[in-house]
Amino acid sequence: MWARRLFEQSVGVGFMGSVRTARQRRARRRERGNAGSAATANASAYIKRQIPTYELLSEEGLDAIERHADRILKEIGIEIRGDDEAHRLFREAGATVQGDRIRFDEGLAASLCSTAPAQFTQHARNPARSVVIGGDCTVFSPMYGAPFVRDLEKGRRYATLEDFENLVKLAYLCPWLHHSGGTICEPVDVAVNKRHLDMVYAHARWSDKAFMGSVTLPERAADSIALCRLLFGESFVAENCVILANINVNSPLVYDGTVTQVMRTYASAGQAVVVVPFVLGGAMGPVTVAGSIAQAHAEALVGVALTQLVRPGVPVIYGNFFTTVTLRSGAPTFGMPESALAYIAVGQLARRNRLPFRCGGALTASKVADAQAAQESGDSLMPVILGGANFILHAAGWLEGALVMGYEKFVLDMDHLGMMHRFLEGIQLDDNGFAMDAFHEVEPGTHFLGCQHTLTNYRTAFFEPELTDNLTSEQWEEAGSTTAETRAYARWKEMLANYEAPAIDEAVDEAMREFIAKKKAAMEDRWY
Amino acid sequence: MWARRLFEQSVGVGFMGSVRTARQRRARRRERGNAGSAATANASAYIKRQIPTYELLSEEGLDAIERHADRILKEIGIEIRGDDEAHRLFREAGATVQGDRIRFDEGLAASLCSTAPAQFTQHARNPARSVVIGGDCTVFSPMYGAPFVRDLEKGRRYATLEDFENLVKLAYLCPWLHHSGGTICEPVDVAVNKRHLDMVYAHARWSDKAFMGSVTLPERAADSIALCRLLFGESFVAENCVILANINVNSPLVYDGTVTQVMRTYASAGQAVVVVPFVLGGAMGPVTVAGSIAQAHAEALVGVALTQLVRPGVPVIYGNFFTTVTLRSGAPTFGMPESALAYIAVGQLARRNRLPFRCGGALTASKVADAQAAQESGDSLMPVILGGANFILHAAGWLEGALVMGYEKFVLDMDHLGMMHRFLEGIQLDDNGFAMDAFHEVEPGTHFLGCQHTLTNYRTAFFEPELTDNLTSEQWEEAGSTTAETRAYARWKEMLANYEAPAIDEAVDEAMREFIAKKKAAMEDRWY
Repeated sequence: MWARRLFEQSVGVGFMGSVRTARQRRARRRERGNAGSAATANASAYIKRQIPTYELLSEEGLDAIERHADRILKEIGIEIRGDDEAHRLFREAGATVQGDRIRFDEGLAASLCSTAPAQFTQHARNPARSVVIGGDCTVFSPMYGAPFVRDLEKGRRYATLEDFENLVKLAYLCPWLHHSGGTICEPVDVAVNKRHLDMVYAHARWSDKAFMGSVTLPERAADSIALCRLLFGESFVAENCVILANINVNSPLVYDGTVTQVMRTYASAGQAVVVVPFVLGGAMGPVTVAGSIAQAHAEALVGVALTQLVRPGVPVIYGNFFTTVTLRSGAPTFGMPESALAYIAVGQLARRNRLPFRCGGALTASKVADAQAAQESGDSLMPVILGGANFILHAAGWLEGALVMGYEKFVLDMDHLGMMHRFLEGIQLDDNGFAMDAFHEVEPGTHFLGCQHTLTNYRTAFFEPELTDNLTSEQWEEAGSTTAETRAYARWKEMLANYEAPAIDEAVDEAMREFIAKKKAAMEDRWY
Repeated sequence: MWARRLFEQSVGVGFMGSVRTARQRRARRRERGNAGSAATANASAYIKRQIPTYELLSEEGLDAIERHADRILKEIGIEIRGDDEAHRLFREAGATVQGDRIRFDEGLAASLCSTAPAQFTQHARNPARSVVIGGDCTVFSPMYGAPFVRDLEKGRRYATLEDFENLVKLAYLCPWLHHSGGTICEPVDVAVNKRHLDMVYAHARWSDKAFMGSVTLPERAADSIALCRLLFGESFVAENCVILANINVNSPLVYDGTVTQVMRTYASAGQAVVVVPFVLGGAMGPVTVAGSIAQAHAEALVGVALTQLVRPGVPVIYGNFFTTVTLRSGAPTFGMPESALAYIAVGQLARRNRLPFRCGGALTASKVADAQAAQESGDSLMPVILGGANFILHAAGWLEGALVMGYEKFVLDMDHLGMMHRFLEGIQLDDNGFAMDAFHEVEPGTHFLGCQHTLTNYRTAFFEPELTDNLTSEQWEEAGSTTAETRAYARWKEMLANYEAPAIDEAVDEAMREFIAKKKAAMEDRWY
């Protein structure tokens, strides 16, 4: 009130113009192009962080976790089930293999990870959109794996290939998502044994950002890589990382043979695996955070080590998925304080081992894009922003514990990611930032609205989200008493209506289509 | 799905019992008493943080801010308008006073603050609820200053004394709010010149937590202190801090004489002032963050110094209120990344000067308790949690840029504060935390649900919020497709229905009532 009144008294109806009508806002967005953001953070292919990481645990605390991870690897060990080649690799590297169980002497697993690069580039077909993963860089990627979608118009329903393509397009349009993701939702109208082909094609065709491949079977991994060879060229793929594979560990302490074969498929092709211990504290890990972190660290080191034994120096990401359960029903919970703490600590472990780090996202158990969804998502995202995560999967769209990809949630999260861009830019402590000229121009008790420093800086001074409502109560009621969710609905509809596909070499497109048609023709539909 | 299914397969319907009906949950809450939280964080009178603060800026960066604050104080100065006694105090302390303008040589303002205690106790009438403010301690207090309230039943309306009392009662019942606050909402049905008496009485009578007094005029400040003398006893008040006064600076660079007289009233009585530079970047401060921080630091130092000149060693809190504006309409915005960065940096400045620190809260521009409200509130709160704020005003209830106190928002924020309690406890890195016995008991690929370590720890392992929904989609639909907001409505109604007032010495109560009746009888109602 005070502020708005001061502003209104000072400059007439508004600051740099009157409150715009919805129609004027739409027109303004079109002027700015499809991406359509009024934001002032620096949109770029990925974020180079300019603020320090938050160091939650002391060196002694991190030592204790590594020591316990080593104890788990020595005293209990990890099972890789039915993958003789993986057994052979670990045996030759000095581990003790008995049946499927593999045990490691103290420090061995970590030392086997030492050939992994601290950061690497994942190439996009548009070179300007290639991303650097690791070091001081942060990459946001959409959610992964939802069998359902939800929107305000059609409610909750099984996802289809049309939904998948819509989401690839929305991610393409968003300046704050650096990556096209992988299985953003499951296109369940396509046969299980064929849908990976359509998903990889959609990423390759309807976006020009980097993307992820199939991990459900080794042959689907091979198909994903084969499509990349058509898209990027064989020799380029042989020398460069062009695809990521997100691998969940069968926690606790097991990799099934399919998983390790998929990992070996990607690693041997020089492509990057994201190794993700999947720990629900109390279920797939102990009910205490320290133990769950130690377990996850042990599991991650073994996965990373496997990629290095397959092909030393191949890029790989140290991942983590940890959450808690509610004791009321046993259901998984998200955005809880125990997870937030764990994410930060795990980031410290990743940095200690000089490995690119994946964690967090905008996670929630909420069914809809309400206050719970936003709170839990924020409390999942901020810790990894501060904790230095390099690749943030699930950064947009997640609802209902990953069962649902929410369209409104997707664009609401996008807006929040824009804010995180700005946050990671830090505070500019230069002469312009300190504005001494403004203090000399503006008398005490007056205001800075029209001073030269404000006029010079106002366009880039503050981040401007798209979906935030800052109207007066009266204006807001006139505009229909919207919520963030209803505004988000209008936004994604508008974005899709304005989508234009990035250009692609027709021969490349044709080659991919032909590859897919041939593959599909050789298979019967399987629905399980 | 995976998780719930694993849980359900493992332990029947649920983990430690089936999903409870609403009625069972209510019964369970009653068993646990009025406070009614299922939470497992350690509720206590205040939080003693067990995690480090986040150090955003380097020592060089902080030096630069202090240097520019010193330049502002020397080159421009600060005005204290029409308070000769304040002028005299600063002149005698070595500042240069010309008219209302006071200029300080480099380092002078900071040195005048050096007698302020780094932490102090604010006593509550229930000694078990006295709070320590400063150092490693964090105290959560409700929002302050809303002329309106909003709830799902009656919508948005002017606040009344009944609302005020309701909110004092809700704060009393909440284990995560340590403080009863001040003007949680404005009881606009009481005359402007009388309402401070009713507010202080409500805090004193319907809660037993620490609270804040009136700051609108020096005589109202004196009334607030006089009521405390009746409540705590004269000699106790003479020796102890029993009331806080939240003082907004008339930024930029002005304290009006009323404000400084109120500050002197509290300080001379040994009571604590919270000095709050009130900077909207671009309006009451420069449009760049660095300049706004330097200005706020300069303003805060002068206010803190004034309290120390009045009574050396009197407790005082270094405060900060900073937010941005949207360039679309000039309206203030909350939860934006620039504010988040500023809050953390300002915390570093407060610690550098060994002063207790107030900042942040659950701030939002949203009209309702939707996704925007939760996101902005979280993005305002988390930075100060990490940034080491000691007194967090506006921790619950804030909507619409402080114009509205939302009942549903109030209880939603409470839940979130419980999570912050747990977060600030950090990770326990002891033998129980590392759970090596569990790893030896649980086979790889199985689960930890029934193992001894889980059974020993499950009751306290994870924080259990009240308002979070973790049901399956089917259960959630059966339960009426609630949102966080609709669940919050049921929660505050239930809390108020179960409220029981804390006992009070009847003679003390009578004395306060008599004081108020006498004061009111001597005044005509004023409505401006």
